[in-house]
Amino acid sequence: MPSFGDAIVTTIDVRYAETDRQGVVYHANFLVWMEIGRTTFLSALGIPYDRLEDRGLLFSVLEARCRYPGAARYGDRVEVATRVLEVRSRTVAFAYELSIEGRRIATAETTLIALDRGRRPRRIPDDVRALLERGPAAG
Amino acid sequence: MPSFGDAIVTTIDVRYAETDRQGVVYHANFLVWMEIGRTTFLSALGIPYDRLEDRGLLFSVLEARCRYPGAARYGDRVEVATRVLEVRSRTVAFAYELSIEGRRIATAETTLIALDRGRRPRRIPDDVRALLERGPAAG
Amino acid sequence: MPSFGDAIVTTIDVRYAETDRQGVVYHANFLVWMEIGRTTFLSALGIPYDRLEDRGLLFSVLEARCRYPGAARYGDRVEVATRVLEVRSRTVAFAYELSIEGRRIATAETTLIALDRGRRPRRIPDDVRALLERGPAAG
Amino acid sequence: MPSFGDAIVTTIDVRYAETDRQGVVYHANFLVWMEIGRTTFLSALGIPYDRLEDRGLLFSVLEARCRYPGAARYGDRVEVATRVLEVRSRTVAFAYELSIEGRRIATAETTLIALDRGRRPRRIPDDVRALLERGPAAG
Repeated sequence: MPSFGDAIVTTIDVRYAETDRQGVVYHANFLVWMEIGRTTFLSALGIPYDRLEDRGLLFSVLEARCRYPGAARYGDRVEVATRVLEVRSRTVAFAYELSIEGRRIATAETTLIALDRGRRPRRIPDDVRALLERGPAAG
Repeated sequence: MPSFGDAIVTTIDVRYAETDRQGVVYHANFLVWMEIGRTTFLSALGIPYDRLEDRGLLFSVLEARCRYPGAARYGDRVEVATRVLEVRSRTVAFAYELSIEGRRIATAETTLIALDRGRRPRRIPDDVRALLERGPAAG
Repeated sequence: MPSFGDAIVTTIDVRYAETDRQGVVYHANFLVWMEIGRTTFLSALGIPYDRLEDRGLLFSVLEARCRYPGAARYGDRVEVATRVLEVRSRTVAFAYELSIEGRRIATAETTLIALDRGRRPRRIPDDVRALLERGPAAG
Repeated sequence: MPSFGDAIVTTIDVRYAETDRQGVVYHANFLVWMEIGRTTFLSALGIPYDRLEDRGLLFSVLEARCRYPGAARYGDRVEVATRVLEVRSRTVAFAYELSIEGRRIATAETTLIALDRGRRPRRIPDDVRALLERGPAAG
């Protein structure tokens, strides 16, 4: 898994199901790819997200913003570079850069809020917060 | 909600997100529509599916079969006619006919198995089974 | 189709397929609903979007921003209120308010750019622009 | 890319977006995975599917059948073994076996029909048919 600055890069092959009748990937699917970026990022930190949920720590998207200067097509391989923008007591913000062969197709940010099983806001545990703040180890 | 024979008909407007780069609806989405057909069917019987799950009765698809003689496009309004094929102690089979302005685009069958919260097979409760066997009241 | 201020309201019944393992609707699906809001809005103006594409006018999402103060669940009926924020020579911005029984679950904005069949930016035709600027007729 | 008998195996990491409120992957997504299996299979034969479409050869699903003895969860890695069942002048049938760590979760078959750009049935070109009949080279 290559790392780019303090980002983790995930590679995604465009699925036929992700295209729409304009012949390009439907825009909502970029949010799905960004989440795969987060999953890979957390795994690289040693905190598989499914284990967090097993511990009663859910992350829910509070805000998402995405700009689409380019498009992706079936047959393309997309690189999603994911990094942490900011960590607070209950929220964490990620930034993403999506590119195809070095050509940037989208940039985005999402803010996630930590919830308990009852979907009430809760503090991010110190160990998780420390890992998020430190980021992936230099490769 | 019109009824057709012992079927219940649900109307679905094709979503842009459901199309693919061939300009038609991606085939997997027909399974989603069929499930909307089941939801509407169960509601018409007076058994909203979310309430069943609240009671600890989950239905899980055990087998699905779909034939696609036609296609659907953005802008089309699809009618999904859903009816019960067979009810057994733990499973129920549904049949579907999908059409656009009277032109049939797909036919399908699915068999669902009743599970408990631990995803273990369980009997369909007698009251639910009786409703499934009786079907929707003649309109 | 009720109108709310200069917005058009579309009603969406949550699909089982739209939920995720947290038991709520996966956040990317809100973008799909917002697009259904745009489709309904354009139809209410008398400009069905598929006809625009037939004329060689494609709209592509240039930027999307969504805040999620609430969540939606299977069984919920979601109202998507859609209105035009701004029209420029090549772009149009929409605002959305999503709610369930009067409780707001999300607000969002998207900017769309007009493209020709070759995906090159183009001017929005005057007749379309005029309709977008005027908005839906008071009910 | 490991090959299994005359099958090609594709590996898929379950996406959060693919789960539903039962905590397992929504059944329609298995059809999407099977298509990724086909894409990988065709690439292994040296016939990238996007190039076929560029040549005016579209494949459309005519029939799909899937049995689900098991389930997939977020965090699982799914292996999709894809092979050709039968090739005819206008159709090709594929078989699939989906498994997680050697445990079979689904088996399926799909029949695809060759179409031209106008979505009229057409013959599968001889070179493509020969490759499909020969299958992947023994590794």
